[in-house]
Amino acid sequence: MSRELKLPTQDSRLKTNVRNIKLTLEYDGAAFYGFQRQPHHRTIQQVLEEALSKFFDSPMKIGGASSRTDAGVHALCQVVHFKTKSKHPLPQIQRGLNFHLPQEVAVREVEEVPLSFHARFDAKSKIYEYRIWNDPVRSPLTGKSAFHVPFQLNTAVMRLGAKILTGKHDFRSFCGADSAALKKGDTVRTVKKIEIKKSGSLLKIRVEGDGFLNHMVRNFAGTLIEMGAGKVTAADLKEVLNAKDRRKAGRNVPAHALCLMSVKY
Amino acid sequence: MSRELKLPTQDSRLKTNVRNIKLTLEYDGAAFYGFQRQPHHRTIQQVLEEALSKFFDSPMKIGGASSRTDAGVHALCQVVHFKTKSKHPLPQIQRGLNFHLPQEVAVREVEEVPLSFHARFDAKSKIYEYRIWNDPVRSPLTGKSAFHVPFQLNTAVMRLGAKILTGKHDFRSFCGADSAALKKGDTVRTVKKIEIKKSGSLLKIRVEGDGFLNHMVRNFAGTLIEMGAGKVTAADLKEVLNAKDRRKAGRNVPAHALCLMSVKY
Repeated sequence: MSRELKLPTQDSRLKTNVRNIKLTLEYDGAAFYGFQRQPHHRTIQQVLEEALSKFFDSPMKIGGASSRTDAGVHALCQVVHFKTKSKHPLPQIQRGLNFHLPQEVAVREVEEVPLSFHARFDAKSKIYEYRIWNDPVRSPLTGKSAFHVPFQLNTAVMRLGAKILTGKHDFRSFCGADSAALKKGDTVRTVKKIEIKKSGSLLKIRVEGDGFLNHMVRNFAGTLIEMGAGKVTAADLKEVLNAKDRRKAGRNVPAHALCLMSVKY
Repeated sequence: MSRELKLPTQDSRLKTNVRNIKLTLEYDGAAFYGFQRQPHHRTIQQVLEEALSKFFDSPMKIGGASSRTDAGVHALCQVVHFKTKSKHPLPQIQRGLNFHLPQEVAVREVEEVPLSFHARFDAKSKIYEYRIWNDPVRSPLTGKSAFHVPFQLNTAVMRLGAKILTGKHDFRSFCGADSAALKKGDTVRTVKKIEIKKSGSLLKIRVEGDGFLNHMVRNFAGTLIEMGAGKVTAADLKEVLNAKDRRKAGRNVPAHALCLMSVKY
C-alpha cells in the first residue's frame, strides 16, 4: 500500500494546502453571553472569530465547537477547530490569537489535526463540573465560581441519585425548553459517570457524558441538590426520568458554578 | 485567690454589660478600596460599620482589625472586634450582619472574647499568600486571583531567597513609601516562615510573620519573582535587605493575587 493511501488527510492537505487547526480554549464565562454567536451580545465565538480574522487578516469562521456553553458557564478546556491555508507555525498562531483575544479568553493549546477532525462530532465524551458551596455562610471568594446552598446536603443520597442518572436514558425531563434536540425528539444520551466529591464545604458534581442536552447538567445539579436536601427521593427521581417531561425536574441552578472541564476524542 | 480576681474581664463584663465580639471576615478585595475607611471610596471597614449600625440600630465602630489590607487584596480570615451592650445571641449577630453586608463580604465566625482582646495588638502572627500563575499562557479562570508570570521561575532559587528573608530583620527596603511605620523608623519585623509551593502552573508564596509593613508581602513576591527569573541573585537580595532602602527592592506586584489567609492569637 502506498504512503499516499495510508495518509489521505495529509495527502489532501498537500494538494489543497488547507490545514485544520484544533484550539483548546479557557474562558471566564461571566464576561460573555454564552459561546454561540448572537446578535447584540458579546459571545466567545464572536471574539474568537474576530481574533482569528485579525491574526490572519481575512474573515475567518470556526468550523465547530465541542459544546455550546450557556451564558455565564466557564470552560477550562473548550475545543474548537478552524481551517486555514496559512503556513504560520502553531506557536505563532497561539501567541497571535492570545494577543488579539480579550483577557477573559485564552488559547491554551494549538494542534494541527487531520482535515476530517470535527471538534463537536468527533468528541467521544465531555466532562462538566458543577460546584456548590454547601455552608450556612456564603463565601465571597469561592462563591464567584460556586452556587451557595446554605442547608446541609446529604451526599450519600445525592450519590444514589447520581447512580440513577448514569447510563443511557432519554433525558427529555432534563432538557431546556428551547432546545433543537427536544424539537427533533433527539433526547437520548449516555451519561458515563457522575462523581460527587466533597472537600470541606465545597461540593463538586462532575458529569461525564457522550453529549449533553441544553441545561442538562444544571438540571441534574438542581435535582441532586433537592435530593440532598431531602425534598426529592430516589423513587421521585426515577419517576422524573421516566416522565420524559421537562416540568418534572428540579429547578435550573445558576450558570456561574458550571465549568466545561475537558473533552475526550 | 477569688474567682473574681482570676477572671477580671468576665467580671468587668458583668459590671458594665459590655461585650467584646470578635468577627472573622472573608472578602473579595476586588470590590473595595482596601480595608480602612477613606473618604469617597468604598472600603470593608465602611460597609462593615454600616452593617453593624443597621443591625444594632445605632452608630457603631469597630475597635480594630488584624490587618489593614490594601485595595484589591482579598481576605479568607480577616479578624476585627467591636464592643456592644446588646444581648443578642451570637448566631443572630452573624445572620444579621451577613444580611446587611454586601455579597462580597461575609462574617464567617462570631465569638465573644474577653474585653481586653484586641484584633490587631493581640495577633501573634498573620499568614498571607501570594499566588502566581507561572505559565507561558494566561489563565482566565485562575488569573482572577493570581499574577501571571509568563517566563519560567526557578523555585529552588526562590526558596534560597525565602530563607534570606526569614527571621528578624529591618525590612525598611520592603516597605511602601507612605507608611507610618517607615516615618517612625518602626520597620523591624519577624518573618517566621516563607513557604514556596508549586502545583502545576500555580505557584504560591506563603508568608507568616508577627507583623507586616505596608506592601511588604507584595515587595517580597516581586523580589522573589525576580530571583526566580534570574535577574536578582541571593547576594543581591542580601544587599537589598541590608541597604534598608525602599528603592532597592523588586517591583510591587498586583494586589489581586494577595490574600490574608489567617491570623493566629
